[in-house]
Amino acid sequence: MTIGWIGAGRMGYEMAGRLARGGADVLVWNRTRAKAEPLAKLGATIADILPELAARDIVFCMVSTWDDVQQVMRAMLDRAKKVPRLVIECSSISLEGSTELRKMLAARGIEYLAAPVSGNAKVIKAGRLSFVCSGPKRAFDAALPYLKMIAPAASWVGEGELARIVKICHNVFLGVVTQSLAEVTVLAEKAGVPRHAFLDFMNQSVMGSTFTRYKTPAFVNLDFKVTFTPKLLRKDLDLGLDAGRRFEVPLPLASMTRDLVQTMIGNGMTEKDFSELLVLQARASGLQLKPENVEVEDGLA
Amino acid sequence: MTIGWIGAGRMGYEMAGRLARGGADVLVWNRTRAKAEPLAKLGATIADILPELAARDIVFCMVSTWDDVQQVMRAMLDRAKKVPRLVIECSSISLEGSTELRKMLAARGIEYLAAPVSGNAKVIKAGRLSFVCSGPKRAFDAALPYLKMIAPAASWVGEGELARIVKICHNVFLGVVTQSLAEVTVLAEKAGVPRHAFLDFMNQSVMGSTFTRYKTPAFVNLDFKVTFTPKLLRKDLDLGLDAGRRFEVPLPLASMTRDLVQTMIGNGMTEKDFSELLVLQARASGLQLKPENVEVEDGLA
Amino acid sequence: MTIGWIGAGRMGYEMAGRLARGGADVLVWNRTRAKAEPLAKLGATIADILPELAARDIVFCMVSTWDDVQQVMRAMLDRAKKVPRLVIECSSISLEGSTELRKMLAARGIEYLAAPVSGNAKVIKAGRLSFVCSGPKRAFDAALPYLKMIAPAASWVGEGELARIVKICHNVFLGVVTQSLAEVTVLAEKAGVPRHAFLDFMNQSVMGSTFTRYKTPAFVNLDFKVTFTPKLLRKDLDLGLDAGRRFEVPLPLASMTRDLVQTMIGNGMTEKDFSELLVLQARASGLQLKPENVEVEDGLA
Amino acid sequence: MTIGWIGAGRMGYEMAGRLARGGADVLVWNRTRAKAEPLAKLGATIADILPELAARDIVFCMVSTWDDVQQVMRAMLDRAKKVPRLVIECSSISLEGSTELRKMLAARGIEYLAAPVSGNAKVIKAGRLSFVCSGPKRAFDAALPYLKMIAPAASWVGEGELARIVKICHNVFLGVVTQSLAEVTVLAEKAGVPRHAFLDFMNQSVMGSTFTRYKTPAFVNLDFKVTFTPKLLRKDLDLGLDAGRRFEVPLPLASMTRDLVQTMIGNGMTEKDFSELLVLQARASGLQLKPENVEVEDGLA
Repeated sequence: MTIGWIGAGRMGYEMAGRLARGGADVLVWNRTRAKAEPLAKLGATIADILPELAARDIVFCMVSTWDDVQQVMRAMLDRAKKVPRLVIECSSISLEGSTELRKMLAARGIEYLAAPVSGNAKVIKAGRLSFVCSGPKRAFDAALPYLKMIAPAASWVGEGELARIVKICHNVFLGVVTQSLAEVTVLAEKAGVPRHAFLDFMNQSVMGSTFTRYKTPAFVNLDFKVTFTPKLLRKDLDLGLDAGRRFEVPLPLASMTRDLVQTMIGNGMTEKDFSELLVLQARASGLQLKPENVEVEDGLA
Repeated sequence: MTIGWIGAGRMGYEMAGRLARGGADVLVWNRTRAKAEPLAKLGATIADILPELAARDIVFCMVSTWDDVQQVMRAMLDRAKKVPRLVIECSSISLEGSTELRKMLAARGIEYLAAPVSGNAKVIKAGRLSFVCSGPKRAFDAALPYLKMIAPAASWVGEGELARIVKICHNVFLGVVTQSLAEVTVLAEKAGVPRHAFLDFMNQSVMGSTFTRYKTPAFVNLDFKVTFTPKLLRKDLDLGLDAGRRFEVPLPLASMTRDLVQTMIGNGMTEKDFSELLVLQARASGLQLKPENVEVEDGLA
Repeated sequence: MTIGWIGAGRMGYEMAGRLARGGADVLVWNRTRAKAEPLAKLGATIADILPELAARDIVFCMVSTWDDVQQVMRAMLDRAKKVPRLVIECSSISLEGSTELRKMLAARGIEYLAAPVSGNAKVIKAGRLSFVCSGPKRAFDAALPYLKMIAPAASWVGEGELARIVKICHNVFLGVVTQSLAEVTVLAEKAGVPRHAFLDFMNQSVMGSTFTRYKTPAFVNLDFKVTFTPKLLRKDLDLGLDAGRRFEVPLPLASMTRDLVQTMIGNGMTEKDFSELLVLQARASGLQLKPENVEVEDGLA
Repeated sequence: MTIGWIGAGRMGYEMAGRLARGGADVLVWNRTRAKAEPLAKLGATIADILPELAARDIVFCMVSTWDDVQQVMRAMLDRAKKVPRLVIECSSISLEGSTELRKMLAARGIEYLAAPVSGNAKVIKAGRLSFVCSGPKRAFDAALPYLKMIAPAASWVGEGELARIVKICHNVFLGVVTQSLAEVTVLAEKAGVPRHAFLDFMNQSVMGSTFTRYKTPAFVNLDFKVTFTPKLLRKDLDLGLDAGRRFEVPLPLASMTRDLVQTMIGNGMTEKDFSELLVLQARASGLQLKPENVEVEDGLA
């Protein structure tokens, strides 16, 4: 099978790279061609224009927004003689966008997997990404060998756009976990336990996750370089609460976390990483945080 | 160094067994001697009376309550000619109990590590237990080779009873994580995603932990055999909130989770596992849960 | 000035009656004419068809939903030669509906006051209703003598649809106050204080309001005859939370109350009054409520 | 009947003054005699030493803390030949203090009413105070004519120290109401409604209370002169939550409000009135509050 890959941003680059290294026949397109070029060394071919990808069997898409998804899909498919059998869309788009894309592709006889991921660029590099997929089971089975080149874990959760709901649930959980970790980290610190010692234990305990480990450097050394902004987390919490309203599911911890993220934004903490929730929590506790300047692992090395 | 081990209950048995198998010279005492006897096959010696253990270099204690701890310590040490250099207390006792024990031991020139654990009997068997320790750093260093025979991870978090606070923080986090997981699992289910499929993804995602994995069978097949009762979780949440009051740390998610656990208890859900929080959440969402009867792994096999 | 009145339901009937008794020249229309007829004894005239009202100076509208509002306005104004100077819309409609109505009326040169109310039919009878109005200040001033015949209190809060936001804020506050009152009433009861004694004090204290007084019979004698359903309260809380998202205002107590109202609905408590929040709270507290069968005043006699 | 009055602080002075003006035979003692002297003009007698009050039939006590209560009671009763029939204790003391006082008085054959109040000095002056009493019903009946001189409302809620629990419930409710009012006031302001207009409506609505009215000047003009500090409110919320734990009543809104009051304190807002919750809410909403400089009534004139 031949693969097309759209998008060589921070995450897309790493994902396509893993496919290429895995031996897949990958043709990559990126808006800024230069960014994709280093992938050639790993065995990928670089496309000049999007319509070249239309002749591929499977096309992956990993761009930024729903607007980008629409644009690249149209640019690839309009006037195409041959179309892919399957499109696998990995960007973080809404349920509504995903539904619309499914219709657009179905009209051209193309199967479609919604396939958002859990993890960031470092997680991909560390070989720890996971996919959550929905759409035709047969399409998932066909795609699985390629998904596995990119990520050790790929789950199929059902038909249609269910994977989008699951991704939202994942991000709601991520928000709550971060706030809870901020609460207990500040409590432990005020009781006399350095953050690095506390998190070292938590990470090794049954509660430790890839996530708690890779957030540890931020919590210990107060390096809040953006991975995900407070406003993006608020958006996902709002999508979760909106789903809660639609399906009549009360979400008390998600609601509370959403209000705390809003509080963070109201207090002007908008430009750094959402894990600045730790700082909000410390202020609420009368604690002036200081970087501990301890080298800690992020578990992704 | 010679080791004494007090307590061969569900957890203590597994822990002592790992020490014996690791080649340590272990003398085990248990109230009901018969329960300890199978440890002899692994190389341990079984004591008839507690005072025999007083001559050991290091004595571990893993019993149920602070009352038990007091009793066994007195029974071992009263009238003892030789006393251990170090006592390592692993039961879930309060900060106050731990402080009192430290005084009692110090009066006899015995060093003391507070060393509660993260995990249950199955986690120990799977070689995934972790210790959090506080007390003299030197004592921790001396004990480390033995701790490592029992558990791959052992963290030292500082002097005194800090490990007790850390254990409380750990359990508060565990409560919040469980409630949040209940919220999103019910949301995903009402949206159409089976619980086993949802949790399969979550467990493989960056958010997955040993804990989320070993709670998965309960969430999927509604097997709420007790590992930890709602009242015990409430107790630990109350200890956490009490520490929050003392150290002036607001803990909004912990407070809310505490109120939900109380709600569970008020509704008569007291006899099964605390993970019945899933059932409370489902009822609040108008969802009648059914066992999915899908074989799922607990990640501890 | 001549007055037209649309809607003689439970609230509209009482309001129009007060105008008539106050000496105003009122022409009343109601879908079911018979329901309006008793108003004739108070001095009102009863219209046969809606277009008769178009010739009045001021027309009040008090119906159920935005759909009703649209219908009656069109029926009154389409093909009308003369139109009212001012329409005063008192139903509980959304911000969007209110905006649309303003446009529709402006296109015909009619001024418009958004004028939702605080209170129910009994409150009107007791002469304790209050209006919150927005729209042109001049229109408010002109309408004031008539508003005052209906209700002792009428506030003007600004231009446009602001009164609709204020009404939403009012209902959000009402929801939170009810839940908080349920919490402390159950606490007092479990401590040994009968509900009637507790509420008697609260009602007389600085915290007592017309609302706490008229909810007292429900709380004491468990008479949950509907005044406002849980689903309607949820709708208003959702409108409030939606406004919170739009204006970036975190509303933690409103969020939590919303989740509790959802919990109530999920548990099947949908058919009675929203004040059954007391029952939800009692169950969460392991308390079986019983009617106290004590005659208590509602403060509206 | 002859009355003794202990304590002529801000509240005690006003209360004793109302008794004197009402024609009661009142003998007043205050630590700083000069503060009590103006009461002579209203018909009271001023005592030089506490033991003089022991010969009175009923002795009221209105001081600051439990320590003060103990001191004045001992100073009055030790070595007294005649003792009062009834002591009415109005200070804000704990359940435990109240129980101890009851024992101390019972040992001397003195009946005792726990009689905390709802209101502040201005509320007393305005004739709007209310008592909540517990203890022997007969003692309450005997005291009622005197209570009524001080306050229009006096409720008897049962035996023992129940009135203390009720006062705690009252203050928990007060905290929640204040936070909720802060939430909706900020929401209305961000939507375009001035605070004075919003609160004018709320105060006149069915939700308005003596409390919302007398807090209005603080909310409108940001005058946060202390009436009750955040730390005192936190103490009462903690007493409420503690009672909730004892009686197994979850109090989600009280818990959340408690965490917000702690957040306020953590952010250094400790020296002004607890109604600065409005400021905390505004900051969380990205709103810079300004005094509106509008003359508003406090409803107590």
